[in-house]
Amino acid sequence: MIVVLEQGADPARVRRELVDHGLWVVPLEGGPTPQFLIEPQSAASARESLLGIAGVAAVATPRSAHPLIDAQPAVVQVGATRLGPGAPPVFIAGPCSVESEQQIDAIAARLAAQGVRFLRGGAFKPRTSPYAFQGHGEAALGWLRGAADAHGLAVVTEVLDPRDVELVASAADLLQIGSRNMQNAPLLRAAAGAHKPMLVKRGMAATIDEWLLAGEYCLLHGAPAVVFCERGIRGFDSSTRNLLDLGAVALLPQVYKLPVIVDPSHAVGRRDLVPALSRAAIAAGAAGLMLETHDEPGRALSDGPQALLPDQLGELLLELGAGQ
Amino acid sequence: MIVVLEQGADPARVRRELVDHGLWVVPLEGGPTPQFLIEPQSAASARESLLGIAGVAAVATPRSAHPLIDAQPAVVQVGATRLGPGAPPVFIAGPCSVESEQQIDAIAARLAAQGVRFLRGGAFKPRTSPYAFQGHGEAALGWLRGAADAHGLAVVTEVLDPRDVELVASAADLLQIGSRNMQNAPLLRAAAGAHKPMLVKRGMAATIDEWLLAGEYCLLHGAPAVVFCERGIRGFDSSTRNLLDLGAVALLPQVYKLPVIVDPSHAVGRRDLVPALSRAAIAAGAAGLMLETHDEPGRALSDGPQALLPDQLGELLLELGAGQ
Amino acid sequence: MIVVLEQGADPARVRRELVDHGLWVVPLEGGPTPQFLIEPQSAASARESLLGIAGVAAVATPRSAHPLIDAQPAVVQVGATRLGPGAPPVFIAGPCSVESEQQIDAIAARLAAQGVRFLRGGAFKPRTSPYAFQGHGEAALGWLRGAADAHGLAVVTEVLDPRDVELVASAADLLQIGSRNMQNAPLLRAAAGAHKPMLVKRGMAATIDEWLLAGEYCLLHGAPAVVFCERGIRGFDSSTRNLLDLGAVALLPQVYKLPVIVDPSHAVGRRDLVPALSRAAIAAGAAGLMLETHDEPGRALSDGPQALLPDQLGELLLELGAGQ
Amino acid sequence: MIVVLEQGADPARVRRELVDHGLWVVPLEGGPTPQFLIEPQSAASARESLLGIAGVAAVATPRSAHPLIDAQPAVVQVGATRLGPGAPPVFIAGPCSVESEQQIDAIAARLAAQGVRFLRGGAFKPRTSPYAFQGHGEAALGWLRGAADAHGLAVVTEVLDPRDVELVASAADLLQIGSRNMQNAPLLRAAAGAHKPMLVKRGMAATIDEWLLAGEYCLLHGAPAVVFCERGIRGFDSSTRNLLDLGAVALLPQVYKLPVIVDPSHAVGRRDLVPALSRAAIAAGAAGLMLETHDEPGRALSDGPQALLPDQLGELLLELGAGQ
Repeated sequence: MIVVLEQGADPARVRRELVDHGLWVVPLEGGPTPQFLIEPQSAASARESLLGIAGVAAVATPRSAHPLIDAQPAVVQVGATRLGPGAPPVFIAGPCSVESEQQIDAIAARLAAQGVRFLRGGAFKPRTSPYAFQGHGEAALGWLRGAADAHGLAVVTEVLDPRDVELVASAADLLQIGSRNMQNAPLLRAAAGAHKPMLVKRGMAATIDEWLLAGEYCLLHGAPAVVFCERGIRGFDSSTRNLLDLGAVALLPQVYKLPVIVDPSHAVGRRDLVPALSRAAIAAGAAGLMLETHDEPGRALSDGPQALLPDQLGELLLELGAGQ
Repeated sequence: MIVVLEQGADPARVRRELVDHGLWVVPLEGGPTPQFLIEPQSAASARESLLGIAGVAAVATPRSAHPLIDAQPAVVQVGATRLGPGAPPVFIAGPCSVESEQQIDAIAARLAAQGVRFLRGGAFKPRTSPYAFQGHGEAALGWLRGAADAHGLAVVTEVLDPRDVELVASAADLLQIGSRNMQNAPLLRAAAGAHKPMLVKRGMAATIDEWLLAGEYCLLHGAPAVVFCERGIRGFDSSTRNLLDLGAVALLPQVYKLPVIVDPSHAVGRRDLVPALSRAAIAAGAAGLMLETHDEPGRALSDGPQALLPDQLGELLLELGAGQ
Repeated sequence: MIVVLEQGADPARVRRELVDHGLWVVPLEGGPTPQFLIEPQSAASARESLLGIAGVAAVATPRSAHPLIDAQPAVVQVGATRLGPGAPPVFIAGPCSVESEQQIDAIAARLAAQGVRFLRGGAFKPRTSPYAFQGHGEAALGWLRGAADAHGLAVVTEVLDPRDVELVASAADLLQIGSRNMQNAPLLRAAAGAHKPMLVKRGMAATIDEWLLAGEYCLLHGAPAVVFCERGIRGFDSSTRNLLDLGAVALLPQVYKLPVIVDPSHAVGRRDLVPALSRAAIAAGAAGLMLETHDEPGRALSDGPQALLPDQLGELLLELGAGQ
Repeated sequence: MIVVLEQGADPARVRRELVDHGLWVVPLEGGPTPQFLIEPQSAASARESLLGIAGVAAVATPRSAHPLIDAQPAVVQVGATRLGPGAPPVFIAGPCSVESEQQIDAIAARLAAQGVRFLRGGAFKPRTSPYAFQGHGEAALGWLRGAADAHGLAVVTEVLDPRDVELVASAADLLQIGSRNMQNAPLLRAAAGAHKPMLVKRGMAATIDEWLLAGEYCLLHGAPAVVFCERGIRGFDSSTRNLLDLGAVALLPQVYKLPVIVDPSHAVGRRDLVPALSRAAIAAGAAGLMLETHDEPGRALSDGPQALLPDQLGELLLELGAGQ
């Protein structure tokens, strides 16, 4: 953003007022009149309030790269559930992978009783190794949908392949794009064409702008609504699996008026820290949480070490007000 | 950490139990008996509980690099205030720089009434540019100490130079090492020699181990206690000044039993996000917050855009229970 | 890697010999005999030479996660061209996007005369914004193939969508997976099924292991050979578009015996630094370069600012020995 | 940088010309006349050549934050040696730590014969752990100076503490600031006061601007010249100790006309990759290299695993033209 001053304005005074608004100001030299470059880590300010400062002639900004995302309501509707700033936090839980019909049904029963609204579970799994379990696919989708319906839950599940969109969308209420696919344009386009609300996880090195543009792909190609999900970015310390960016979680609802949820399980990858970061995410403004849980993590087909045990999850949900 | 199996143990069964404990397990081949490498993003587990698993012969670990930090009590005493897990959150607030006697006295009066326990303010300022305001130095220390004493507050202030330790320590109750100096060994040694509790900010690219080792320098050279402070690490998105790592904030009290506070002002650098991240920090387990505030940010000599206005700070402190 | 010592061995002496081999050594305590953890930033050492050190009982390592990649020959054949350590450097050049039949033919003619062996050009473009030019698709593939055939060049082009694999593979000699899709498993599987050599660009936050595992997907699902391409990872300084990791470029041929090329155009994103980093990439051990060029960058449909002008490219190729 | 257009200019045409210059252009809306924001990853362009584009009214830029660094000659003189773009590459070598009088003399004799011009060796060592060897201090300085004088070498050594500046400067021809201290203002000021040329290593998370500002501190406070040293920044892959940024190494001489050398030993931390990255650094435009070497790495008091053996160093120096 550039603030252009009027001829004869007092730059020092204007600068003070801009800083009072929470802006980081860099004076520019060589223009026809004095100008200030406003750095991106500045507080969001209504253009009108800056134009109201005496001595400010104009405020020049790039055109938004994501007009549809900008126009999306802050609170979105996914089935019967409202999700976004102001709405009660929404809890999504379930195993990393859907492992069997019995497993997912038992988990769904328990979660429904604990106040969870959305059942998660991977049918098609994106895996770093080609030798790792890749999901039970179509069968798992059926088990997942059946378990959710039996216990009054909605379904969140991930689609990996444009050729599977119809299949996955038929089982999902909220269609998930994983972080490895945040910039997979053919998948975003195909998934959006299913006309279901979408959950877009942030890529491991994605800037906020790149993340919002992934959402823009979805809205442009037919999705009725996008919910964003922060799940940790690549960090340099190996004590946690990823680095949870709660600054981004505060930014989306406050500055962009967008719903964002947090997946603390993948963010830290360690069960002992999941409750603390769940609380922190809600406190930062997350509209909900996506939590991994498993009855017997040692037998989980993926990501067992980060799954909460049923009792741990129950306690956490109770503390955070699920089901109220 | 390495888990060594007994001859004849069933590796698959032991692996399941380790995963049940929240451990990420990598089998090793070529040893005299089967061994598992436990990856660092695993949940903390008592060595005894792992040795209790049938089939586990031994658990081999590196000797801790920071025995004094390990032995420090979880809750430390700074003057009349207890700081650490379990104690009520402690609030440290004040301007970025101590700008005048009048300024700091007026702020101190207000903060004391709002439930703040520690007054912060820079007398010697570490600045990226040699042309930026470097602090009012010795005079500012006197004003700061005077204002704190007048209003019943303790003082936190930063020391930059080993030659200033005596001077700064005489005015400080909690002696701050800034993030630029986290690995400045001569300064850590000299400051520790003042025998005051120390506040060690995390460096911008410091791992948890490097941060704890900075604390180890302090305890080894005479500091009675160390409080850690997370203030954001270097990130790749320019929407916030730095990237706040609340995973580290959860880790210190839970896994290392150490007191950690958070400086959300430097972490995000934008006033509009400071309240959300303050709440999140406390929810993640921070023992306290360090907050920048200014009556007229436009006239601040440093970091005005990130300073909370007095009313904003008051509201936030009230919400977070300061002074109760 | 873990080095297990014999009972009675002198740990200090064994440690010295390990360090002489270039290993970073961390002693472990609590095992049945002394053990050393070897840190990952250690020099590669043949297992046999470590077992030959007096006092070493065993060397325990994880099983390789990518056996097919490990077994791939260091030098791979793509059409008439050998690519890998020891073979002459291979030059791939062309525009970011294939813009018209005339354009690509004119460029191909020029490149062939300059010693380039592979023509690059995007027909399907992965773009951060849904409003950016997405490529001329099937028509562009035909123009690209025609231009290459007319001038005796091979073709490298990117496939984005599993449903386009047959089409793109029919036009390509080397099938490119872009960095946004490095962990897009359905695409890797589908593309590998075309049984063409593949070029796998590194993801923006991918570790070496994750990158090699992407290659493993390709070999497992039918690709005859994989060439890796470093194109810069996400950095924190905005002076360059990305951060070129030439440590990784040295690592692949030296330690893993794998062919790696470098795309300096995307790595730095600025034309003025491309020649210097091209020289550096070859010096670090790259088997080739992928370079963007355009006659009129101002009219380019994508990435004009980073395209070399024809004369700049010609000079650089001459200097680096293209066509000899 | 902002490019302000004349009333009535054709923005599309001006944009094309700017892209032809290698600039990334973002149109701004809302100003009195059309303006373009030029993104920082753009090629360096003389202001005059942009003002020469028809339709460009003005080019507005921030005032440089480091005027003294900007004015420093590209090639600096350190004793008898010229260092910078155009001058022959300069080789600095020696052990990590000065361990004994005999050791450093033997190494100096060998290095002098191999064409090395500068002897390096730590007398005061910055160490992550307070229990690690901290250097032999004053005695080591004497041994280092003696060895250098005996064999016709100049001395580079690090100063850690403002109180040691006089002592260290009396032994050094080029006074080194380590990466941990790049933003240690009191040290920069004190060291600059010794009026010796300084070598400023880049901090592990320092931007280019922050690095240049560290150099500005030095020139402002009395240093006659500053040489910069890239030694790797913090990365996320553990295969190498740090992440060598050769983009920065190309940038300094080309864009800022400043001398930069590279320390590949600390950058990768593994002996096997040091030669490849040494070649790459010179190819990228480095004015010289700083290399660690040791006769018996297993007995080194610090960083043995990354030290080149004498024969390896000799071969590398010969290949790179040392002593010619």
